[in-house]
Amino acid sequence: MNFAAVIHEPKSKMSYSYDEKTIHVRIKVGKNDAQRIRIRAVDPFNWIPSKEDSEKYVFDTNTIVEIPMAKECETEYHDVWFASVEEFVWSRIRYGFVIENETEKYFYGSNHVVDLKNNAEEENNIWNYYNFPYINTEDIYQAPKWVEDTIWYQIFPYSFSNENTESSGESHGTLKGIIKKLDYIKEIGINGIYFTPIFLAGSEHKYDTIDYKQIDPDFGTNEEFAELVEEAHKRGIRIMLDAVFNHCGNKHPFWQDVLKKGKKSEYYDCFYIVDDTKEPNELIEINGVKFNNFKTFGYVAQMPKWNTGNQKVREYLLNVATYWIEKYHIDGWRLDVANEVSHDFWRVFRKRVKDIDPNLYILGENWDNSMPWLGGDQFDSVMNYEFMNQIWNFIGTCELGKERKKSFTAQQFKNGMSELISFYPKPVQKVMFNLLDSHDTARIMSICRGNIKAVMLAYVIQMTFAGSPSIYYGSELGLDGMEENRKFMPWDIAKTDHELKRHIQKLIQIRKTNSCCKSTNIHWLTADNVTGTVIYKKSSKNSKMYVVIHNNEKEEEIILPDEMRNKIFKEIYREEKIETTENLILKPYEFLILSKSHMQNYD
Amino acid sequence: MNFAAVIHEPKSKMSYSYDEKTIHVRIKVGKNDAQRIRIRAVDPFNWIPSKEDSEKYVFDTNTIVEIPMAKECETEYHDVWFASVEEFVWSRIRYGFVIENETEKYFYGSNHVVDLKNNAEEENNIWNYYNFPYINTEDIYQAPKWVEDTIWYQIFPYSFSNENTESSGESHGTLKGIIKKLDYIKEIGINGIYFTPIFLAGSEHKYDTIDYKQIDPDFGTNEEFAELVEEAHKRGIRIMLDAVFNHCGNKHPFWQDVLKKGKKSEYYDCFYIVDDTKEPNELIEINGVKFNNFKTFGYVAQMPKWNTGNQKVREYLLNVATYWIEKYHIDGWRLDVANEVSHDFWRVFRKRVKDIDPNLYILGENWDNSMPWLGGDQFDSVMNYEFMNQIWNFIGTCELGKERKKSFTAQQFKNGMSELISFYPKPVQKVMFNLLDSHDTARIMSICRGNIKAVMLAYVIQMTFAGSPSIYYGSELGLDGMEENRKFMPWDIAKTDHELKRHIQKLIQIRKTNSCCKSTNIHWLTADNVTGTVIYKKSSKNSKMYVVIHNNEKEEEIILPDEMRNKIFKEIYREEKIETTENLILKPYEFLILSKSHMQNYD
Repeated sequence: MNFAAVIHEPKSKMSYSYDEKTIHVRIKVGKNDAQRIRIRAVDPFNWIPSKEDSEKYVFDTNTIVEIPMAKECETEYHDVWFASVEEFVWSRIRYGFVIENETEKYFYGSNHVVDLKNNAEEENNIWNYYNFPYINTEDIYQAPKWVEDTIWYQIFPYSFSNENTESSGESHGTLKGIIKKLDYIKEIGINGIYFTPIFLAGSEHKYDTIDYKQIDPDFGTNEEFAELVEEAHKRGIRIMLDAVFNHCGNKHPFWQDVLKKGKKSEYYDCFYIVDDTKEPNELIEINGVKFNNFKTFGYVAQMPKWNTGNQKVREYLLNVATYWIEKYHIDGWRLDVANEVSHDFWRVFRKRVKDIDPNLYILGENWDNSMPWLGGDQFDSVMNYEFMNQIWNFIGTCELGKERKKSFTAQQFKNGMSELISFYPKPVQKVMFNLLDSHDTARIMSICRGNIKAVMLAYVIQMTFAGSPSIYYGSELGLDGMEENRKFMPWDIAKTDHELKRHIQKLIQIRKTNSCCKSTNIHWLTADNVTGTVIYKKSSKNSKMYVVIHNNEKEEEIILPDEMRNKIFKEIYREEKIETTENLILKPYEFLILSKSHMQNYD
Repeated sequence: MNFAAVIHEPKSKMSYSYDEKTIHVRIKVGKNDAQRIRIRAVDPFNWIPSKEDSEKYVFDTNTIVEIPMAKECETEYHDVWFASVEEFVWSRIRYGFVIENETEKYFYGSNHVVDLKNNAEEENNIWNYYNFPYINTEDIYQAPKWVEDTIWYQIFPYSFSNENTESSGESHGTLKGIIKKLDYIKEIGINGIYFTPIFLAGSEHKYDTIDYKQIDPDFGTNEEFAELVEEAHKRGIRIMLDAVFNHCGNKHPFWQDVLKKGKKSEYYDCFYIVDDTKEPNELIEINGVKFNNFKTFGYVAQMPKWNTGNQKVREYLLNVATYWIEKYHIDGWRLDVANEVSHDFWRVFRKRVKDIDPNLYILGENWDNSMPWLGGDQFDSVMNYEFMNQIWNFIGTCELGKERKKSFTAQQFKNGMSELISFYPKPVQKVMFNLLDSHDTARIMSICRGNIKAVMLAYVIQMTFAGSPSIYYGSELGLDGMEENRKFMPWDIAKTDHELKRHIQKLIQIRKTNSCCKSTNIHWLTADNVTGTVIYKKSSKNSKMYVVIHNNEKEEEIILPDEMRNKIFKEIYREEKIETTENLILKPYEFLILSKSHMQNYD
């Protein structure tokens, strides 16, 4: 057994409180090292007087319970095992692992690994058990329930819809224009809209805010925004705005005051001046290179970074956060450049907004693995660019930011997705913002080099995965763009019965009526590098679903996994009955969504 | 290379902000897998226009810097490598690892491992770099500077000193009695006292608080406590009190009110009533076993658990926390059963007390690995029982809570200590509360079965390790106790020139004058299972120190590590000059503390 490969840590993604009496436990072991893993778990206070000497206390090992673990997924180098450790009345749990294969049997505990073949009683050694000391209600991660049932539509308002014209080039998007298109959006099956910034700013993208409480006149008025929210809510569509709290625009009055008055400005400490012996707008030299004398987003002088450690800044931004919830009833905040703002600020932010609306969704713009933000004290989830990358790499043909060298194989895709799955608690997975493209990336159509069949596969994966899927405006119409990713919405195409839009509509409908889609229970049955075929099984309480993805421009015959042979399935996308044998012929880029729930079968 | 064994995670103990321009980075690799590891690190925003097409941006790989890592320590299955990644002006860093041995060279990044022998340019692939998005000042872990220079003395007040009598059995300890003994304490070299609870309570140990603002009359008055603090501070001794915030005593007025009025009590929600259809003091049956109808510490009915999620409880306890700081100028709070109270509460607690006194030390009573509490947002450190366990297992002969089967070998001790070292950021290590015994454990003398020579070795290790060492009252006089660990202080022995007390005095003096002792830089040179000898090197900026621990009842000849051969050392404990050859004869339980700093040598 590869002991160096075993990974477990309490109070992490590998051991977290699920509810007041339950913890979820994961352990990573070397690939194929274990055939069976059991958790031994117990209340840490189960001491009883010894039979020999009633003055002495011994641990009551009879109260130790065993919970079998199941293999959750396989990554490139590890198997990940999972179990739910439940019904611990007193909310405190000690536990350890019995890891077995054909020839070996070990106890893996907090201090050391013990060979149980020689020391059988060591599986009862409570001092070598991990500790989950207490499940406190206020520490349990809780996201708004509605998010896992939401399909998002991301709108870049400048390019979406104008109330007077549907042609690009003539004018830019407005709120009134958006209101006009709410029915179009609803028709796709969308029930949440995420807007990139709409507050007064200096650029088209509006990420350089000047006034956080005023709708940019390019888009309309605050009253029109109130109307937009009302009209959206009427249609069952939730609204999420973009909180640009990492930095403001250089025309923001606070920053202008600092530029004017320097150290005498009451806002001087609201920003980070690097060399305070120099004026804020002087250039400074570091190792021979000239820089702005203040911290910025990236190196963008138009975006001076807020000092969110400063009390004045905090109160100012928190007031903005609550203003749009209280006055305009928005349903979510997407936090721009969230990972560059302090954890400390976000903790206060969460308290403040959740006090007003516990159902407000907090979504961080983090591009990397984000557990340090997802412990229940900061965000509900992050923009799942890692999910996007896996799909791009498998289905697409370009890599983020540069030409692509080679695609992921089916195995690499499976491994990468599994790594991602094992990286987050299950309740977090359910509300991750799963996207295929955004205003910050190339569009999925360009990533797939115009191959609509490939794009369709990407959406099948997105819509059959746990999370909160998002569609970037226009991508449902096959809009492309590598660098030019913010083109005007092609309303002429919207009027046609576009194949991709119909595909997405259908998938959303399937997602809404099949609980398997949003379930976190996934089993990878096939990942065939030769044919490019992937098959995964999704299961929920009462049903199962098999998703077959044939990422190949050629027809191929594949061998079905055992459990799918000689069965009758319902293919729920095409609404056909399918009777399987042992093999299956798959056409180029074919996909199948097979349901067993309401069908006769031989089980 | 054992890829499954490689472990790294950003924003963890393996990658944390040290100061505003520095992160500390660790990576664990399979034992002996790497001969050389370099970090490649860069500001993530160093994009420049491409030479071919100025519209396109490419990453400026020329700005990537390389930082060699050094092997920090070796655990049972891993080597741990460390580097300080410094001088990042803009506080944001992307990084990855180049891992090499004689035949292999790999880039280990956030997404995958790449064989650099076939893909040399992949070491520049910024998309495969880990991200430390931003170092925000308010997120940097910061403990009070004084703690690393503090030697603690833990007093169980009931058993320490009475102003009228020095004999046990006649009376119990008092604050006045303690004041009388401050000079004794100071003479040992102590500069901090940790008191177990002293507030009004129902028992001798006072962990069942009745009034958090009143000194228990057993011990004296609030005025006497003020005098005690003043007298201690005069002598340069800091004072830490015990915050029992997990539970109160069953005679606490809030709980009494609940017992009396049931649901009508305004304090009903201050506690956790399990079945609210029953009275709080009724018994309830769960799976055939009778329990109290309220949550408690362990199963102790005398200690009802506070609901620290309740706002009334929060304000009540936080008011207590600030009261003793503002009015009595205490220097630290030790948090009882800290790991069973919510993270959420401790975050608020930290803010509240540090706002009043940023130099207040917050010490959690956690018995297990505690990173989830030590990210800078909750505690400064925890009671380092894991440190104690390593020493008990190596030097002692009993195991916590039960008879011991066998000692750790020298290798096991080294591995265990190294695992512990690798588990905490260096700034945390510097203030860990390193103890050999406490009111909750057997005494070190009993653990060593009365072998004073072994006990002396334990103190040598404690005093030459990074951390904030603590001595449990009386243990400096060889006081013993397995279950009876709270015996009255033997003042008669205190008057003698006790060998152990002199030993500790000497060690404290060495610790205070040799910066190596408190340094986190440690190298294990020898861990010899045959002779039971361990040698570690401690180094600080200007000096080195070698500590030789011969944990063996027999004289043995050991082979010295290369760098210690044929040198002239100062043995700073006995103040002797020692000239080494290649071997060294060590007497039973001998130890040496060898300094090179001010001595001539052959280097």
